[in-house]
Amino acid sequence: MLTADYIVFRSGSLLYVVTEFIEGLVETYPGLQYLDGFPEVKVVLRSDVSSKTNDKVAVISGGGSGHEPAHAGFVGEGMLTAAICGDVFASPPVDAILAGIRAVTGPMGCLLIVKNYTGDRLNFGLASEQAKSEGYKVEMVIVGDDCALPPPRGIAGRRGLAGTILVHKVAGAAAASGLSLADVAAEAKHASEMVGTMGVALSVCTLPGQVASDRLGPGKMELGLGIHGEPGAAVTDVQPVDSLVSHVLNQILSQETNYLPIKRGSRVILMINGMGATPVMELMIIAGKAIPKVQLEHGLAVDRVYTGSFMTSLDMAGFSVSIMKVDQAILQRLDAKTKAPHWPVGVDGNHPPAKIPVPVPPSRSAITDETLSRPQQLNQQGRILEAAIEAAASAVIDIKDNLNDWDSKSGDGDCGSTMCKGAVAILDDLKKHYPLNDAAETINEIGSSIRRVMGGTSGIIYDIFCKAAYSNLKARSESVITPLSWADALESAIAAISKYGGASAGYRTMLDALIPAASVLKERLTAGDDPVDCFVLSSEAALSGAEDTKNMKAQAGRSSYVPAEILASVPDPGAMAAAAWYRAAALAVKDMN
Amino acid sequence: MLTADYIVFRSGSLLYVVTEFIEGLVETYPGLQYLDGFPEVKVVLRSDVSSKTNDKVAVISGGGSGHEPAHAGFVGEGMLTAAICGDVFASPPVDAILAGIRAVTGPMGCLLIVKNYTGDRLNFGLASEQAKSEGYKVEMVIVGDDCALPPPRGIAGRRGLAGTILVHKVAGAAAASGLSLADVAAEAKHASEMVGTMGVALSVCTLPGQVASDRLGPGKMELGLGIHGEPGAAVTDVQPVDSLVSHVLNQILSQETNYLPIKRGSRVILMINGMGATPVMELMIIAGKAIPKVQLEHGLAVDRVYTGSFMTSLDMAGFSVSIMKVDQAILQRLDAKTKAPHWPVGVDGNHPPAKIPVPVPPSRSAITDETLSRPQQLNQQGRILEAAIEAAASAVIDIKDNLNDWDSKSGDGDCGSTMCKGAVAILDDLKKHYPLNDAAETINEIGSSIRRVMGGTSGIIYDIFCKAAYSNLKARSESVITPLSWADALESAIAAISKYGGASAGYRTMLDALIPAASVLKERLTAGDDPVDCFVLSSEAALSGAEDTKNMKAQAGRSSYVPAEILASVPDPGAMAAAAWYRAAALAVKDMN
Repeated sequence: MLTADYIVFRSGSLLYVVTEFIEGLVETYPGLQYLDGFPEVKVVLRSDVSSKTNDKVAVISGGGSGHEPAHAGFVGEGMLTAAICGDVFASPPVDAILAGIRAVTGPMGCLLIVKNYTGDRLNFGLASEQAKSEGYKVEMVIVGDDCALPPPRGIAGRRGLAGTILVHKVAGAAAASGLSLADVAAEAKHASEMVGTMGVALSVCTLPGQVASDRLGPGKMELGLGIHGEPGAAVTDVQPVDSLVSHVLNQILSQETNYLPIKRGSRVILMINGMGATPVMELMIIAGKAIPKVQLEHGLAVDRVYTGSFMTSLDMAGFSVSIMKVDQAILQRLDAKTKAPHWPVGVDGNHPPAKIPVPVPPSRSAITDETLSRPQQLNQQGRILEAAIEAAASAVIDIKDNLNDWDSKSGDGDCGSTMCKGAVAILDDLKKHYPLNDAAETINEIGSSIRRVMGGTSGIIYDIFCKAAYSNLKARSESVITPLSWADALESAIAAISKYGGASAGYRTMLDALIPAASVLKERLTAGDDPVDCFVLSSEAALSGAEDTKNMKAQAGRSSYVPAEILASVPDPGAMAAAAWYRAAALAVKDMN
Repeated sequence: MLTADYIVFRSGSLLYVVTEFIEGLVETYPGLQYLDGFPEVKVVLRSDVSSKTNDKVAVISGGGSGHEPAHAGFVGEGMLTAAICGDVFASPPVDAILAGIRAVTGPMGCLLIVKNYTGDRLNFGLASEQAKSEGYKVEMVIVGDDCALPPPRGIAGRRGLAGTILVHKVAGAAAASGLSLADVAAEAKHASEMVGTMGVALSVCTLPGQVASDRLGPGKMELGLGIHGEPGAAVTDVQPVDSLVSHVLNQILSQETNYLPIKRGSRVILMINGMGATPVMELMIIAGKAIPKVQLEHGLAVDRVYTGSFMTSLDMAGFSVSIMKVDQAILQRLDAKTKAPHWPVGVDGNHPPAKIPVPVPPSRSAITDETLSRPQQLNQQGRILEAAIEAAASAVIDIKDNLNDWDSKSGDGDCGSTMCKGAVAILDDLKKHYPLNDAAETINEIGSSIRRVMGGTSGIIYDIFCKAAYSNLKARSESVITPLSWADALESAIAAISKYGGASAGYRTMLDALIPAASVLKERLTAGDDPVDCFVLSSEAALSGAEDTKNMKAQAGRSSYVPAEILASVPDPGAMAAAAWYRAAALAVKDMN
């Protein structure tokens, strides 16, 4: 499978990806600027701060690129003052770090927050010494939060991973509150000692301009990865996310390595971090798995959860989990406002219950039982309605085979069977509980009968048709619906299925029967003709409209792929069905009068 | 290559990924809740709103899942009031939509914002009609912003893509400002007519529980994709990002399709949207390419740029670009504050110049030229310093072959050659410009000479050593450095390389020569011995310390893989080099006295 950076980076060299990233970043966020020193000096800084005006401790971080949004996306008031970007996975040169220090450091000094990698330590270290010799106050805190490996002997120490972002936040908030350099550094150091991280990967990242590594075979994953594409601590078969999350949490909280001073009852925050190609859905699923495990299996109180892609490895698919022990002081730093664009928002505050009850549908008891069951005695309208419904449903059943036949030439051949199901259900429910003396409620029930048995688009379209007519009728306070009201309801029902279904006149659908019918009905009624005659007349328009669909191109569904000459021999079955029930209803009404 | 959802979803069914996503989301964001109706009803809503208390128009959206953070991540004050989540790529059922409407809709009514897909239109449509029949005020706006295909005839219409998020924001802000349902709907409809989108993909998304599709062959990409893994409008060879972005912009702004009422001089905003597995770095690069093209080639003013993953397709690698024509009114809606956690922050406001000059290093002119060039006349300290430096550098040159030899047994065999380069540079620069009468500045220059020619860790470590000593010496106001000050400077230099380099005593490094030397020097000086004797005595400690490294395990670098019995036969070359120059300097000082 290709990865996105294949295309992105195909055109350019490794050198330019970082400068182009910075250009796009600064175009996106007006709160950011960069130093005009490309390609060597790649420094992103707050546009509202300069060394001349900065009366707070500057907080500076950085390192190799390829970890975006880290670190440049965390520059902003209340977090980083500047980020020094190296080339991909390469420590930035001393001169770039120095340029960053000089650009933002005022009399309060600056804190350098450095992930524990030899190159970063040395380059930031040398820049720090150089800056001190130039008269700047500089402190440096090194973050090594990796919990994947047993405590290392020797120089290298634990790697700096996503927990570093939390240290940035604590330090940035401390600096924003006006603390001295010594105090900001002390808070950052304390925070770095409270956080542990472990990552897992399902793919190896692809270096710009290089072909993707096939180090990981199919069905394999790496546990305890770093963030530079280096091999993980172990390769295993892919595991279900549940056991994977358990393993990661156990490793971070291991009593054996004892990396974190966390014991049952401790308060913690979690960071669920995507490695670059991990979708939000997956990160949230991981968060949803991790939180109850941390609470129930490890007995910790989870105060905040930060879920997103914060410290990535180019296009690596995978995630890391960080756990930080917190007290009220750290929590206050994490919750403090920041303008850093990639710090997650909406995370602080107390959690209400996660779920609330589904609202109860408006109680049917408001409508009397009588209303929603077949009346013992039908009034005149009720009797007419019953006859019309019976006739309409029967008409559909009668032409079932024709409908199937027409449909088999242009669709999947089940139009008649589907419509017939609806008609049978209507006849069934009609006897049982249609409140026939209330025309509006009866129409509503017809919709429900149809949707109960008719799958697919036609079922939902007819239900919309009935619901829209119902709302229209219901809005009137007529005990007996006038003919003009029926015509209005029909128009409103047609408008609804046209709106939601997307069809118009001429699209070879049921609307090509109903639209002419409604139009004739309204016209004749307005002209003052006898209502029953109007109804019958309009049903003729429905029929001829349905026949006319033979001459129409199909605009949707399977019929749109059927040659025009075949379509020309058959009418649209949906339109014919609509015409059939409408005509039958009209004739039934006529018979009753 | 595996994709992350392979592992995540391997363990569970398609059904649970959405409910687990919602659980994780709500655990992450305390401002969100969900309706207790899993698995059918999957509705995320603002925890601060209920139908009983809502005095604003509710703004509801939703659709199939797999597009996270859309739509649930955009629920929050000022944006969506509720999001109705279907199963992956499947429209939510009518009852779920109804439940959402009932849960948050107050007397002001609700606006449904629906992406233009038949299933969504019909289900949201039916829910809308049903809600109306229950007495709710409901309006619906359908968004079809796809610009990849020519204007379609018929029912389907243009697909709804990432531009929908911008419509959410406009509607949400309008609702928050207290407008009526009709006005909110009008603003949403207007916004939907101002936005166009086109996407490209480099990989096909993987449905949970299914194997990854290999529809796209290697080196191929799809132009004009939808967001449900359906094939794109065209398949092409992968293209450089530059021409790809041009193509996408031309398509959106095409005069032929004329989808958007945008002409030269129009004001627009851009949304650069990742499809799920696209890293921030790549999105920012695309933004950085798109902005100048939109400005210069299309003559548009770009008011805002939203870059991130907003409307995804599971783990698809790719991106879409949306362009929305804006006026002050729309811009005000987009800029309005929202608590929706995934709406990007820090995007509004005026852009300062993107780049600012790299700060000039503290002017050397503050230090007189005389100070930074070889004095015409050396004072006594200057003469001693010169002799010591010459002796030290020569000593390193003398043992070059030994150093290489020792290094070849435990490292890459170039320690002698590397150190020799530094020593030659020192001898060279010493004659040219070392300001020997100023000991601090001279030490500083030694560091610069070394780093100019010595690559790798050793060069930077020695530069740190010199810079730290320099800062220490510089902080004093002594015209002639006292022996105790030299000892302090040595300690401070050792502390710096230990801090930044990570080594301590016993790690088989140069520190194993320097630490004993510094310790003896300080001890003897404090005891009141003759300073020159102290220096010589301490140099013996350096030598024996260096020899002792034979008995030490390597703690870093290549030597840590070398068997102990081999290491035992050779001292650490770095320690031996340090001992050699230190000893030579001491003897030279003795000779001068």
